[in-house]
Amino acid sequence: MATDDVKLIGSWASVFVMRARIALHLKSISYEFLQETFGSKSELLLKSNPVHKKMPVLIHADKPVCESNIIVQYIDEAWTSSGPSILPSHPYDRAIARFWAAYIDDQWFISLRSILTAQGEEEKNAAIAQVEERTEILEKAFIDCSKGKPFFNGDHIGYLDIALGSFLGWWRVVELDANHKFLDETKAPSLAKWAERFCDDPAVKPIMPEITKLAEFARKLFPKPQA
Amino acid sequence: MATDDVKLIGSWASVFVMRARIALHLKSISYEFLQETFGSKSELLLKSNPVHKKMPVLIHADKPVCESNIIVQYIDEAWTSSGPSILPSHPYDRAIARFWAAYIDDQWFISLRSILTAQGEEEKNAAIAQVEERTEILEKAFIDCSKGKPFFNGDHIGYLDIALGSFLGWWRVVELDANHKFLDETKAPSLAKWAERFCDDPAVKPIMPEITKLAEFARKLFPKPQA
Repeated sequence: MATDDVKLIGSWASVFVMRARIALHLKSISYEFLQETFGSKSELLLKSNPVHKKMPVLIHADKPVCESNIIVQYIDEAWTSSGPSILPSHPYDRAIARFWAAYIDDQWFISLRSILTAQGEEEKNAAIAQVEERTEILEKAFIDCSKGKPFFNGDHIGYLDIALGSFLGWWRVVELDANHKFLDETKAPSLAKWAERFCDDPAVKPIMPEITKLAEFARKLFPKPQA
Repeated sequence: MATDDVKLIGSWASVFVMRARIALHLKSISYEFLQETFGSKSELLLKSNPVHKKMPVLIHADKPVCESNIIVQYIDEAWTSSGPSILPSHPYDRAIARFWAAYIDDQWFISLRSILTAQGEEEKNAAIAQVEERTEILEKAFIDCSKGKPFFNGDHIGYLDIALGSFLGWWRVVELDANHKFLDETKAPSLAKWAERFCDDPAVKPIMPEITKLAEFARKLFPKPQA
């Protein structure tokens, strides 16, 4: 591990924090993980991200970098000689990876979250249908980007793999909650196999949260309305 | 001008299309400007951006790139040896530029637009107050990023200058509509001076729309409710 003055403000359960952690692991950068307490925000977090007051924040040599996808790009650009490149090398492939990463956050994730926050069955079913549709779009994107290789990024995990893969724990929690499988061999066969490979990757496996622990945490975050 | 197989699908009045045009002008890249007709979407646009069906789309050697900030980064990365760098050279400065560019689109612009779409005086005044507050945040960001130089990016226009500067025409239209000045010498003195410099830049001046023409277009897009 490279020894750098790197700290990461975050939490084990956050998808967005996980992105930064996977990028740090890929690049073999050692870091101090400063975990926030559920329900409160530390002074360091508020000082380091005064605009959004959100984790993750990467602090490198006392300078804060905020927003998960920006942190991942920063890690790739600041440690070019450590580990593999996270962004694709060709400008066009980089543009495509950025496009789908934005789609994941701005469209797909919004639908996924709305399954957990839906009021009533009708709203929940509409959200499920939207996730189905958007997952199908991502299945096609995987086929286009990976070009027959194991990851969106080719032979190893990259920017877009991290952007979607960081959701896999929560995605399974949503599947359990909704009693509906999205990532299966018939509906999204390429993504289903990619998901297994991603979770087995040495940069991911040690930090992917256990589903039972995450499901318990989800019940705290999204309590069911009293019957 | 470099001669490249470059087309841009867009419209003269769009902030987001303007971003791509400024980047192309900065890099001295000649391009064919394929203007969309107001109220309809061309087949080429629908085919080139099937996910969002939105302009701008840059088509370089028959390959489409979508989303304005992604296009600007693509132009910078694909034509590294033409013209100045659009993104800052240091990874930390790049992360900061990306952070503020996202803030402009996700927060500041949402407030600005809500002035035009507000229902009633109370909603409008709340939107105006929010733009004031967010412009103050951007005034501080300008001071931090520019470090005494004329632009966010330093000596010449860069990524963040384009991200905010592309809004200047519409911003003035909103000021006229709301009868409220945001960019003035007392409230945002650094940004007010930056705005003048930005609009005078040779890469910007020929494509910055006339305010009267834009105001007329705004009345079509956001018709006033009948009294």
